[in-house]
Amino acid sequence: MLRTWIADSVHKVGEQITLQGWVHTRRNMGKLIFIDLRDQTGVCQVVFLPNHVEALTKAAELGNEFVVEIVGQVNTRPAKQVKADVITGTIEIEAFQLNIISPAATPPFEIEDEFKEEVNEELRLQYRYLDLRRTRLHRNLIVRSEFVRHCRDFLYGNNFVEIETPLLTKSTPEGSRDFIVPSRHYPGSFYALPQSPQQYKQLLVGAGFERYFQLARALRDEDLRADRGYEHTQIDLEMAFVQQADVMATVEQMMIQTVEAMGYTVKQKPFPRFTYAEAMAQFGADKFDLRTPEEKQSKVLAYAWVTDFPFFETTDDASTGSGWTFTHNPFSMPKAEHVDWLLQGKNIEQIITQQYDLVCNGYESGGGSIRAHQPEILRATYQVMGYSAAEIEASIGHMLEAFRFGFPPHGGIALGVERNIMNLTGESYLREVQAFPMTSQGRTAVMSAPAPITAAQLHELNITIQQ
Amino acid sequence: MLRTWIADSVHKVGEQITLQGWVHTRRNMGKLIFIDLRDQTGVCQVVFLPNHVEALTKAAELGNEFVVEIVGQVNTRPAKQVKADVITGTIEIEAFQLNIISPAATPPFEIEDEFKEEVNEELRLQYRYLDLRRTRLHRNLIVRSEFVRHCRDFLYGNNFVEIETPLLTKSTPEGSRDFIVPSRHYPGSFYALPQSPQQYKQLLVGAGFERYFQLARALRDEDLRADRGYEHTQIDLEMAFVQQADVMATVEQMMIQTVEAMGYTVKQKPFPRFTYAEAMAQFGADKFDLRTPEEKQSKVLAYAWVTDFPFFETTDDASTGSGWTFTHNPFSMPKAEHVDWLLQGKNIEQIITQQYDLVCNGYESGGGSIRAHQPEILRATYQVMGYSAAEIEASIGHMLEAFRFGFPPHGGIALGVERNIMNLTGESYLREVQAFPMTSQGRTAVMSAPAPITAAQLHELNITIQQ
Repeated sequence: MLRTWIADSVHKVGEQITLQGWVHTRRNMGKLIFIDLRDQTGVCQVVFLPNHVEALTKAAELGNEFVVEIVGQVNTRPAKQVKADVITGTIEIEAFQLNIISPAATPPFEIEDEFKEEVNEELRLQYRYLDLRRTRLHRNLIVRSEFVRHCRDFLYGNNFVEIETPLLTKSTPEGSRDFIVPSRHYPGSFYALPQSPQQYKQLLVGAGFERYFQLARALRDEDLRADRGYEHTQIDLEMAFVQQADVMATVEQMMIQTVEAMGYTVKQKPFPRFTYAEAMAQFGADKFDLRTPEEKQSKVLAYAWVTDFPFFETTDDASTGSGWTFTHNPFSMPKAEHVDWLLQGKNIEQIITQQYDLVCNGYESGGGSIRAHQPEILRATYQVMGYSAAEIEASIGHMLEAFRFGFPPHGGIALGVERNIMNLTGESYLREVQAFPMTSQGRTAVMSAPAPITAAQLHELNITIQQ
Repeated sequence: MLRTWIADSVHKVGEQITLQGWVHTRRNMGKLIFIDLRDQTGVCQVVFLPNHVEALTKAAELGNEFVVEIVGQVNTRPAKQVKADVITGTIEIEAFQLNIISPAATPPFEIEDEFKEEVNEELRLQYRYLDLRRTRLHRNLIVRSEFVRHCRDFLYGNNFVEIETPLLTKSTPEGSRDFIVPSRHYPGSFYALPQSPQQYKQLLVGAGFERYFQLARALRDEDLRADRGYEHTQIDLEMAFVQQADVMATVEQMMIQTVEAMGYTVKQKPFPRFTYAEAMAQFGADKFDLRTPEEKQSKVLAYAWVTDFPFFETTDDASTGSGWTFTHNPFSMPKAEHVDWLLQGKNIEQIITQQYDLVCNGYESGGGSIRAHQPEILRATYQVMGYSAAEIEASIGHMLEAFRFGFPPHGGIALGVERNIMNLTGESYLREVQAFPMTSQGRTAVMSAPAPITAAQLHELNITIQQ
């Protein structure tokens, strides 16, 4: 008894099929009962008639969200009952048999009519597995799966090798706050969870994987915001023997192929390009929305590139000794005509970096750069930021060493998966495009974490709780 | 000036092409110089002749691992110079121009002739980016990328949705030792890094993603062994409305399609099946190698399934109150005919679980089960293990709750990516199939971690180092 997916039932008119899924809605009309049945692929209408009295009797017991198996026949609906906006709107299933697989208690919020009531965030996340049954989140995660599938297909087809980099790695003082992991074997020492695979990906192109990518998890212990969680995923890629235009062309092609395959329209091809100075003059920001008001109602994606960012900016942060810090990425290469300024430590504020940001519908969808691959350029960057020779050695000595052994010119990009899916789905909150996001209080969905650990665990890790 | 990949140069006889890559070897013959040039796709021979004296003069400066760009013409080799075992063995490149992009210091170990000398593990990992240039590791990571690509293609083609689950999650006392992450906002509380997405994947099928998969990172703070690191990756999948045979058939089809597409031979199709009792009687173990000695020299993969494992075994571990613990997975379903024994807590040692392990060439390549989806069965499992009602609520209360809202029958599997790649490449150590593995002392490759963190970081996390 082979199960038919609901989306396929529309091709089986006249046939007897077996469906499995959830009772989405039910309407008891006395002599007959209608249910909408839902599975991963869609919803269809099932009717229980008096000619199959056993099934009809059982159907009276059904509640919303019951899990059932139904054997029935696919019938065409009369013309006036066709629902054009539903994939199964031309058919209905006449039920012969009903098997109740799992009953369901009344859910704490409406699954079927998700816009009937406002459900608070804590409750939605506590019962995330129910929230995910609702059309909106279900669609968001399907869109996400489709998006990464198309991006990967493009990258595989263009000679990229998928390589995973470690989660337990070294704390990098330059970035945001790290999540850290106590080491059991090295008392008082800690691993850090990666904020990005920046150094590993550079090492990989240096290792001869000239086109690397991965869907990389990145973690930051920063305060949670609408568009920022503790964890996010980035399409992380790096290419050897490239210039800025090569990386931009590759990414542009990937994005166009991906979103067009998914039924979206790209407003302008090739993507328009703005220098940072032009963007600031024209839009007052380095992210901007090029869509018209009408386009904002439809599946239009207005991509643009922003280039020519200042490499450095002043900072009050006492952690840099010089008052200068990088604007985007300390591993970037300055424009060729500014390399001498960097090496000589002059005109710092005028040095432009080979950084490129991809903007879409008002948001930063990705950012990347051509990297410094000569040790003297990377060293000079850290000197500008006030690092002493010893601090440079401790922080990036391994990169400077790696650059000695035949390192190719290279550059790459990281595209935020969540940010891109938010653009594709029109969502404003990162948590709407992740399966099990944190609450805004930093607690896990469904499960109760963070939580205390045992005294034995603490002892083994050589740490104590500060009183 | 479009760059040609070395693997494609063989199709360009008579044409002028531009190559980029690393000097793999060089032979100075006085009046002419040969180099082998290497890029991501392969190696080819380049000859510098006196008719291009500028290039020839520059070529005399080349050392191994220099990064270069070469413009030259593809010539067919004379028949007696053809090397049949090299993809570019029928051609050589006559160099017209040479551009030295990056010089290279002498590497700390031989890149080209990797079997010339034994290099100690610490040195290989310190210079991992050089080790990865060598043929063996380069091939291993390419095989890994190809393997996951084929598996993903199969899963996407069979209606699986790719969904990521969190890295910052709840500590589960049942498994191995967790890595834990201090919470900044909840003093004295910790997240745990996941040992597997077991509960999340069950919640996802309950959420209506009836076919879920991800390439999931799993972390365990266990002592490092040849086949076990702190981190590994698993192809993690789960299916709703399935029985054991359905999951096994899906996985079997995925493995066959994947490895056959990669040029391997599957010894026996369908995979032979053994109960645990049969395997123990026949092989004395639940993992076994069905290959003949000749097959061990070739690309043969001998898969087999092992089923019908005991659900429980006795343990000395004081953490279970009853002396019983699970053999594989506490979330599994017993065989239908043993459900009553479980519910009544009798004949514990005779209860068989619906667990299936995939064996390949003597190793466990994956393991999965049909899961309990009724709360009373999961609760009974924990009762057998001696959990009190309060302990059950604290540990799996959220799963018991989830099962109340219309949960479908389901089951899945996790296949160890590294273990599978070790089988495909003949490697004995997990670290040979990861890009940046830990040393056997638990230190990161290339970068110096774990490491102390600052007093300010410790303070912010509300922890102190135990003196």
